[in-house]
Amino acid sequence: MIYYKKKDFPTSKIRKFLEPGPIVLVSSMWKGESNIMTMGWHTMMEFTPSLFGCIISGSNHSFELIRKSKECVINIPTVNLAREVVGIGNCSGSDVDKFKKFSLTVAKGSKVKAPLIKECFANFECRIKDSRMVSKYNFFIFEFLKAHVAVSPKYPTTLHYRGEGVFMVSGKHASFRNKFRSENL
Amino acid sequence: MIYYKKKDFPTSKIRKFLEPGPIVLVSSMWKGESNIMTMGWHTMMEFTPSLFGCIISGSNHSFELIRKSKECVINIPTVNLAREVVGIGNCSGSDVDKFKKFSLTVAKGSKVKAPLIKECFANFECRIKDSRMVSKYNFFIFEFLKAHVAVSPKYPTTLHYRGEGVFMVSGKHASFRNKFRSENL
Repeated sequence: MIYYKKKDFPTSKIRKFLEPGPIVLVSSMWKGESNIMTMGWHTMMEFTPSLFGCIISGSNHSFELIRKSKECVINIPTVNLAREVVGIGNCSGSDVDKFKKFSLTVAKGSKVKAPLIKECFANFECRIKDSRMVSKYNFFIFEFLKAHVAVSPKYPTTLHYRGEGVFMVSGKHASFRNKFRSENL
Repeated sequence: MIYYKKKDFPTSKIRKFLEPGPIVLVSSMWKGESNIMTMGWHTMMEFTPSLFGCIISGSNHSFELIRKSKECVINIPTVNLAREVVGIGNCSGSDVDKFKKFSLTVAKGSKVKAPLIKECFANFECRIKDSRMVSKYNFFIFEFLKAHVAVSPKYPTTLHYRGEGVFMVSGKHASFRNKFRSENL
């Protein structure tokens, strides 16, 4: 297991890690029960306040934990956690304690009671901002309250799901900074 | 320029190309005026009907073209179009004809009047399904009506934006298919 040393990170810059579209692990807690789910359908929605929208199906055990507690943590796993990511998506929190089953470590947040996953590259604590689209689309809008990001490496090697059991692994980086107008960065 | 040979693709499987989180080009047309914009804040929302949510800021020239025509095309550019992607994000359709400026070719769709970008790996024709979240969040929900995808390669090499002028380029693929329960694929 890799344990990243982390530091506080500005919530207004979280797009750096979520806009590229990685699979994330969502951790939650309600009345002492915690759970983890994998999630691939999500998008940034605003810089400040830092808003994030995502689909959490009502068939997930986490759905009610998040809906009732009104909070969760978005954790970014790196490629070394691929087996855990797949395993977490393949069992239900109604049957097993996923932290125990996958030997993941709980870290405490400062803004929410939901557990952070220590082994992940980044952890974003968030609270439900708007639940009007939940009944029709299972679409939640969260506000990020606090971000913890690994000191290094600069960019995580992340997993991006294509369906059918296939993941794309994030590749190299290219900067076009000098081609951008500053207001469009 | 690369011109992909394309075939019809099932709209229920579009997640294969959008869930990994690539930068997309959005093309639109209203009363004879067409435009293209770059977009990185989007998510799949449902398989069938095939729904897609995204943020299109009111400051984009495309915003009104899409809102009025109620349709657009989501095009997936590959890494060979990086300069065009950056350039398109750096100028406004109120000043220039982007198809002409970037030497891109219009292809005709079958379900919408908005132009398809021939040089892109895939083109997804769509229509607004729900605009209730537009005034508050600039969040549009589209339904995909028709998909055109390159016959090869199997997976496109896509651009994933991190902000600050930096793109992550999609990397290798890994299949964990035999680790999944079939209903979770």
